[in-house]
Amino acid sequence: MNEFSLIEHFFQSIPSSRQEVKLGIGDDAAIIDVPEGMELLVSSDTLVANTHFLPEWDAFDIAYKAVMVNVSDIAAMGGEPCWISLSLTLPMLESAWLSRFSNGLKTAVQQHHLALIGGDTTQGPLSISITIHGFAPKGTSVRRSGAQPGDNVYISGVLGGAALAVKHLHTESLSFKDKAILMEKLNRPKPRVDLADILRCFASAAIDISDGLSSDLNHICTASGVRAELDLKLIPVHPLVTHYQVNDPIDFALNGGDDYELCFTVPYEKEPFLLEALRKNSIPCYAVGKILPGSGLWAKDKQGKTSPINIAGYQHF
Amino acid sequence: MNEFSLIEHFFQSIPSSRQEVKLGIGDDAAIIDVPEGMELLVSSDTLVANTHFLPEWDAFDIAYKAVMVNVSDIAAMGGEPCWISLSLTLPMLESAWLSRFSNGLKTAVQQHHLALIGGDTTQGPLSISITIHGFAPKGTSVRRSGAQPGDNVYISGVLGGAALAVKHLHTESLSFKDKAILMEKLNRPKPRVDLADILRCFASAAIDISDGLSSDLNHICTASGVRAELDLKLIPVHPLVTHYQVNDPIDFALNGGDDYELCFTVPYEKEPFLLEALRKNSIPCYAVGKILPGSGLWAKDKQGKTSPINIAGYQHF
Repeated sequence: MNEFSLIEHFFQSIPSSRQEVKLGIGDDAAIIDVPEGMELLVSSDTLVANTHFLPEWDAFDIAYKAVMVNVSDIAAMGGEPCWISLSLTLPMLESAWLSRFSNGLKTAVQQHHLALIGGDTTQGPLSISITIHGFAPKGTSVRRSGAQPGDNVYISGVLGGAALAVKHLHTESLSFKDKAILMEKLNRPKPRVDLADILRCFASAAIDISDGLSSDLNHICTASGVRAELDLKLIPVHPLVTHYQVNDPIDFALNGGDDYELCFTVPYEKEPFLLEALRKNSIPCYAVGKILPGSGLWAKDKQGKTSPINIAGYQHF
Repeated sequence: MNEFSLIEHFFQSIPSSRQEVKLGIGDDAAIIDVPEGMELLVSSDTLVANTHFLPEWDAFDIAYKAVMVNVSDIAAMGGEPCWISLSLTLPMLESAWLSRFSNGLKTAVQQHHLALIGGDTTQGPLSISITIHGFAPKGTSVRRSGAQPGDNVYISGVLGGAALAVKHLHTESLSFKDKAILMEKLNRPKPRVDLADILRCFASAAIDISDGLSSDLNHICTASGVRAELDLKLIPVHPLVTHYQVNDPIDFALNGGDDYELCFTVPYEKEPFLLEALRKNSIPCYAVGKILPGSGLWAKDKQGKTSPINIAGYQHF
């Protein structure tokens, strides 16, 4: 098989059409009809071998995560994820690896009813760059910039698990079962698309927690021109983090990246409706702080003392 | 400066807004209003160090070309290129390099009135992955699959120059001036957006010649279920190819990649109108063959003998 037929062989089972996709893979560009009344959302995320994953990891997981981190960006806007373009850089064409990779891609694409509309395959160091498209009713997407003093800060789930997995990648100090749970957290993120409608209705600002809560909530503060104060005792920490990091579980929850939960702010008057919607949909979320006038990120510790937080999220370089 | 402010510093001068861009760089996703009556075109192309360019080349050229190869894909659909997402993977943050890179990006983006709407910066082996978006009036984009027996095959410009540049990357056998001309061909492609309107009006199929004429015209044949017959004496060869490759200039024109000219097919009855439009706009194009029933790519040599062409375009692996 030549390169084109090999790639075609492995990728032909990936869903590539949706109603709006007039022309998918196989031309110079895909052709899409964006539905009337919808605004288009576009986001890109790249996973690079030895930076975001180890090349020897299961290619299923690599592909799966590459899709999910992109889905998470659309979820954070309150949008519906729709189509992805995949730019895949591979050192060589290896059937077994491509088979696992395309299975992971297919699983992720199917789970979120996406279409793979195109991309590019090139030779080079292993890297996966995905651009995702989604949409939301015009004018309703949730930005980082809408937080207002008086809003409460919410988080969609427990934090720190993925960071604990990274810490213990090369250690033997976790039980087999715990390590498996944490690696699942790291490699199989569950983007919070279940919150999209709720965010559009009730949130004033939202962001996905990919670099760590402190870093990402700080982005909301900067974009909105406000200060956030976290109540540290309210921050939901992954139980294994509490178990293994007895001295500093909160640091993992504050600064650990790769959790792909959402952080969002809700105006005081919308809060009862938010809580009702969360209850109805059986979605637990956690109120962890409030938005105040000013700038920067502050924390109230268990003694009730408030002090600025040192922003220490994921450093890309 | 931390990574965010460094990247912001270098990229802040890149145009990032157009009328349709409601929210550009700096959130989880960009927000776009696709104009009514338009279909969206999406394409991705990646340039990887040591595969598509040498890391020591001027970062201006690397950025410029990365944009232009994407613009070419939209041009090949008859579309207007509009916005790009940039996924940039860098071994390290280096001011001088980033400055040249952002200048090249800015120049390319300005030339085509694009907006940079977002992307991702990650640490790893140097690679640039761009997703470009464009649009065309609904139902008018030109695909690869529309060629019909009886159509004539056209090419938008002379071929083989970029391939000759690649051949002589590490030789001293060209004059300084000729090498400069060829490196300009390789590094500063001029995507044929000037042909977009004309293609939409008159072309039955189109493709950009990025992998080589034989390979790319063969894609049209496969997608359209037809055969193409090229008249070798009509194929426009770059004059320096004719000069330096006395024995096989046509091989460079047929199989050399990276030219980013367009190959398109035109129904017989539309040809007079095409020629009139090309003349009016002072765009030279070259009729190089015809579409016939059947499959595959054939060539008529100078003696009038017809035989199948061995498809030998750019091999990605």
